[in-house]
Amino acid sequence: MNNIITIADGAGGEKMDHLIKKTFLKYFEKNGEKVDVPLSELDDSAVINGIVFSTDTHTVQPLFFPGGNIGSLAVAGTVNDVSVMGAKPLALSTGFVIEEGFSKSDFERIIATMAEMAEKADVPIVTGDTKVVEKGALQEMIINTSGIGVRTPLLDSNIEEVRRYREYKGEWLLDSNLEEGDKIIVSGRIGDHGVALLSFREGYGFESKIKSDVAPVNGLIEEVLKAGGVTTAKDPTRGGLSNTLNEISEKSGVGIIVYEEKIPVSNDVKAACEMLGIDPLEIGNEGKVVLGVVKEKAEEVLDSIKKHPLGKNAEIIGEARSDVKGVLMETIVGGRRVLHKPIGDPIPRIC
Amino acid sequence: MNNIITIADGAGGEKMDHLIKKTFLKYFEKNGEKVDVPLSELDDSAVINGIVFSTDTHTVQPLFFPGGNIGSLAVAGTVNDVSVMGAKPLALSTGFVIEEGFSKSDFERIIATMAEMAEKADVPIVTGDTKVVEKGALQEMIINTSGIGVRTPLLDSNIEEVRRYREYKGEWLLDSNLEEGDKIIVSGRIGDHGVALLSFREGYGFESKIKSDVAPVNGLIEEVLKAGGVTTAKDPTRGGLSNTLNEISEKSGVGIIVYEEKIPVSNDVKAACEMLGIDPLEIGNEGKVVLGVVKEKAEEVLDSIKKHPLGKNAEIIGEARSDVKGVLMETIVGGRRVLHKPIGDPIPRIC
Repeated sequence: MNNIITIADGAGGEKMDHLIKKTFLKYFEKNGEKVDVPLSELDDSAVINGIVFSTDTHTVQPLFFPGGNIGSLAVAGTVNDVSVMGAKPLALSTGFVIEEGFSKSDFERIIATMAEMAEKADVPIVTGDTKVVEKGALQEMIINTSGIGVRTPLLDSNIEEVRRYREYKGEWLLDSNLEEGDKIIVSGRIGDHGVALLSFREGYGFESKIKSDVAPVNGLIEEVLKAGGVTTAKDPTRGGLSNTLNEISEKSGVGIIVYEEKIPVSNDVKAACEMLGIDPLEIGNEGKVVLGVVKEKAEEVLDSIKKHPLGKNAEIIGEARSDVKGVLMETIVGGRRVLHKPIGDPIPRIC
Repeated sequence: MNNIITIADGAGGEKMDHLIKKTFLKYFEKNGEKVDVPLSELDDSAVINGIVFSTDTHTVQPLFFPGGNIGSLAVAGTVNDVSVMGAKPLALSTGFVIEEGFSKSDFERIIATMAEMAEKADVPIVTGDTKVVEKGALQEMIINTSGIGVRTPLLDSNIEEVRRYREYKGEWLLDSNLEEGDKIIVSGRIGDHGVALLSFREGYGFESKIKSDVAPVNGLIEEVLKAGGVTTAKDPTRGGLSNTLNEISEKSGVGIIVYEEKIPVSNDVKAACEMLGIDPLEIGNEGKVVLGVVKEKAEEVLDSIKKHPLGKNAEIIGEARSDVKGVLMETIVGGRRVLHKPIGDPIPRIC
């Protein structure tokens, strides 16, 4: 089975890392030498000539789910990937592939949602492409959204603020910018998107209480940049919080400790995850951000997040520590547990 | 059948126009008001804050075909869409969706081809996304490539040259820039890509002589900008030369006459098309450009194209005329024939 691509190869975890490093980086890296933030950073976006550039193809099934649809996901997902670089998203592209026979009214509903989401985020959809393939060649529809963004003075003032407290070489909010002492903040309750989708898809019935958190976070990021002191930012999508923290820890070369009691998870998600035997920390989110913040500014940044509609359940969940390796969690029952990078996403096709 | 999406809705012709105008423009247009070249131009790329931005999802079947594969197509296609705005392509993104069970060696061959093509075009692939879906949810693989580009002094000097001869308000090489008197140039023989693909797919056997023309045209565009006097540029992909000329004529509000004897088509493509009952003018190309050029500069631009490896069969094929409506062709046998915008592409999934 080693010569074929499996679901886990595309699931955002350990196996996917391997696929990316063995193929994409091997072949594409040398092309990107003069890029400000190259492919080899494997960050949320690349940066070239000051232009932040990101892409995401959305294959979610079913297309409509509690709290959103493939269209809202496609818009928010790419707005978020550009935003967490510390950039202002400027515009989106859309690439539709549609199965012949797809309902025009469902198509229009999806387009209307995208327009609404784009307006909410204040990021226009400026260019697009549409392909229709024969029945059976694709399940319903997939949407690629790519996005571009630019630097604003907000990012500069944020970095200036970081530099009041520690040395900082970052020009963008890269995964590799975390340093010992930085606090880790998560902007709200985790697990909602993945659990809502899984529950709805499999008919478990939790979706009456749990809805996807899908939302553009660019407004929230603006607020934290205004507060200042943010060193890194990432949206915990595929592979969830565990994957995101591991990525940051690995790329920054510093350990992370988080405190289970501080990690915001709704009781409904907790209950659903227990029943389904899945870990809420490994489930994708679509409207959340994980931040590294210099410790002196952590409370101020937390306050600024809590004032934003998307951030009222934000928490400081841990900190970067050089005396630990990888990502550890102090559990509520006591003791420490290693948070691994998931091998593959426990729930396929949630984004 | 009016409430479902059909193959023709995505084929780049008349029906697709309708779908786009009824949905995309209706919902997305108001988002793009302040964009330099907005979605409503339906040009090859949008331009926002001086950044040229384009996207294309490639669904070609089979993935490997005479002269290339889905990877070369994906790279060249987007490089070309950015280039024909008169911009310099800066970088590409890739969004893969792969069916579970896809061969890793085929995957690597495709990636290697993309790297090679990107190097040839000198446009790095800087960011990407990969999704793997379960068996049966997608036929093999599709690739989205989005691209960004920037203005260079070459475009400015080209426009300056245009303005020596006529009033010209264009800032980019838009489809709407053609004016009476401008000459129409095509950069080489048309029909190769579509015929090679169709023949190979259906086993007609012409592919021994006919190969896809897939190639990045950014180098060629640079040469014509250096010559100067180019008013519009477009790559004749889906719907072929007929569709491209109709788009330009419609958007520019001026008629076009072309001369059949001047349109470069290889004898092999002519023979294949006759046997298959398809019109070479309606077939997609992947390494060609259609240009509008002020008449005083047409010969000079033609010479500059002919010096480029991709342009040795270039021809001046016609001109813009206010005394005709739409696109007419003076045929070899005598008389004029209307070149219609194809209802849909005669050959699905060639790009």
